[in-house]
Amino acid sequence: MKATAAASPNLAIIKYWGKRDELLKLPYHDSISVTLDKSLRSITTVEFSPTNKEDTMTLDGKAADEKEKKNIRLVLDYIRSKAKKELKATIKSENNFPKASGMASSSSGYAALAVAASKALDLQLTQQELSIAARIGSGSACRSVIGGFVQWKKGNEKDGSDSHALQIADENHWEEFRIVTGIISNAPKLIGSTEGMKRTVETSRLYQERLANMPGTVSGIKKAIIEKDAETFFELAMKESNSLHSVMMDSYPPIIYLNDSSRQIIAKVHQLNETEGKTVAGYTFDAGPNAHIFTLAKNENDIKGLLNEIEGLKGINVSVPGKGPEIIHD
Amino acid sequence: MKATAAASPNLAIIKYWGKRDELLKLPYHDSISVTLDKSLRSITTVEFSPTNKEDTMTLDGKAADEKEKKNIRLVLDYIRSKAKKELKATIKSENNFPKASGMASSSSGYAALAVAASKALDLQLTQQELSIAARIGSGSACRSVIGGFVQWKKGNEKDGSDSHALQIADENHWEEFRIVTGIISNAPKLIGSTEGMKRTVETSRLYQERLANMPGTVSGIKKAIIEKDAETFFELAMKESNSLHSVMMDSYPPIIYLNDSSRQIIAKVHQLNETEGKTVAGYTFDAGPNAHIFTLAKNENDIKGLLNEIEGLKGINVSVPGKGPEIIHD
Repeated sequence: MKATAAASPNLAIIKYWGKRDELLKLPYHDSISVTLDKSLRSITTVEFSPTNKEDTMTLDGKAADEKEKKNIRLVLDYIRSKAKKELKATIKSENNFPKASGMASSSSGYAALAVAASKALDLQLTQQELSIAARIGSGSACRSVIGGFVQWKKGNEKDGSDSHALQIADENHWEEFRIVTGIISNAPKLIGSTEGMKRTVETSRLYQERLANMPGTVSGIKKAIIEKDAETFFELAMKESNSLHSVMMDSYPPIIYLNDSSRQIIAKVHQLNETEGKTVAGYTFDAGPNAHIFTLAKNENDIKGLLNEIEGLKGINVSVPGKGPEIIHD
Repeated sequence: MKATAAASPNLAIIKYWGKRDELLKLPYHDSISVTLDKSLRSITTVEFSPTNKEDTMTLDGKAADEKEKKNIRLVLDYIRSKAKKELKATIKSENNFPKASGMASSSSGYAALAVAASKALDLQLTQQELSIAARIGSGSACRSVIGGFVQWKKGNEKDGSDSHALQIADENHWEEFRIVTGIISNAPKLIGSTEGMKRTVETSRLYQERLANMPGTVSGIKKAIIEKDAETFFELAMKESNSLHSVMMDSYPPIIYLNDSSRQIIAKVHQLNETEGKTVAGYTFDAGPNAHIFTLAKNENDIKGLLNEIEGLKGINVSVPGKGPEIIHD
């Protein structure tokens, strides 16, 4: 009744921003991401035992905080209900990547948890069930149970049974594809995602319009991935990031994650595309100032050069599309 | 056939951002501003003479550039058509305020031009005609031909004959009202307003929604001015500024005027309001990083204190609602 699984974080091209159900982490719209390679991954061991009196969790050597405990229990409860078992678990999770990678660890952490817990109880869950289990812990984690390019279908059911990820294309589909991250800050978010997205949904008068435009954005990005249409992909990724940061700015009080270094990067990417006479790169920003720049292998060095000119740059990380979770021990 | 007029710049609470007619400067929506007091003003002398072969213009001791020349001629042509005279003019315009005041001089300059040119030809134009003359030179100037709190009605006619400013309340209506400007940068705009608003109209997918919401914003701010409802006024001013900077961000390529100092000011104003338990101040940002903070006299020192803590602050300017243009010599 013990298993260890590894999963990699995913980087969203269309971000998850706005929950229609807080507890079940059900989103207002679909999102799309790329699962990163295993140079970045969370490794999670779950052991169920009849002698455990309660669930205990250690994350990177430290006890989980209250919010983490609650979300981990939600995942375990889902897995236990599938297994029809009431055993308590001991959980240990570690990231092989430093926080300074500019990548959030929650997506990989909860994906590894769902896979390890399911394996530990010898369940044969479908990919969709694993995706739902991970989603209940942390929304975006539902995309990390699948490799390559992934779409999270928002679903329509109240219980979230149709809100899970599906693969658009696997990790070998687009070999030239690169994600170059310019790390600007390792500080915790000024405003956590949960609070931030709630504020946007409740106060932004432009958010509904963003939702209305979303199906077109989703199908456009999906098509660009399938056709490996780099120029369209980069352009749509930038527009989508800008739209997200617009509705954050339109929230009250406004949520502003981009700083002067981020602004410089945005300007330089547009300058580069202008100089090249075509769109050779596109940025995206999550809930923070770090810039994730999509490009192709042949332009990777241009992007590194561009980032190295940015004041306040703390580091650069390069990643490629990676596989879904792996069982390491069982 | 010579006259000198003085006019003060206005600060928009609802900005003019988006032209339905480029040449006539006709906007997509109403805007609201406060005309500033005469510590800031442009002084413009216009002299028509049968011996002039062409219009000549000197602005702050320098020859006008091509864009300024074109816009000044548009104003003169409107005035000449009203006077049914074909005389050429010599124009000299100076600002008594430094660029470092954080205030744009075009609104006061074109208002003073319209008033001086009309007087020089002994025309008895109505305030609405003067407003239209100034608008043709620089859209926002149409609000500077009137003192106090001013609304620019967008109008519906193709020729712009119903697109002019009207007074909401005069300069004595709200004695406690203060505008405290935190000057962050005197550098020219990264992207000029003309180009910026064009880009927003053409590319932002959220702009139409902003337009759809605008009538409610206009009536809300107007009502708050008439009722001197400071809390509502400050809150609506902040939301309106945030909405504007949202659609700028949603433009492609994005237009980002706010910098880290602006962000700090935004955060500190919200903190102050939080601490006070009510909205005692509200910020607004034009097409640049300078913060204009609306407050009441009793909180003026709190705002100065807040600004003095901002990294990168270059200066502070305090203004109150002021009168419309004056004829200085004729």
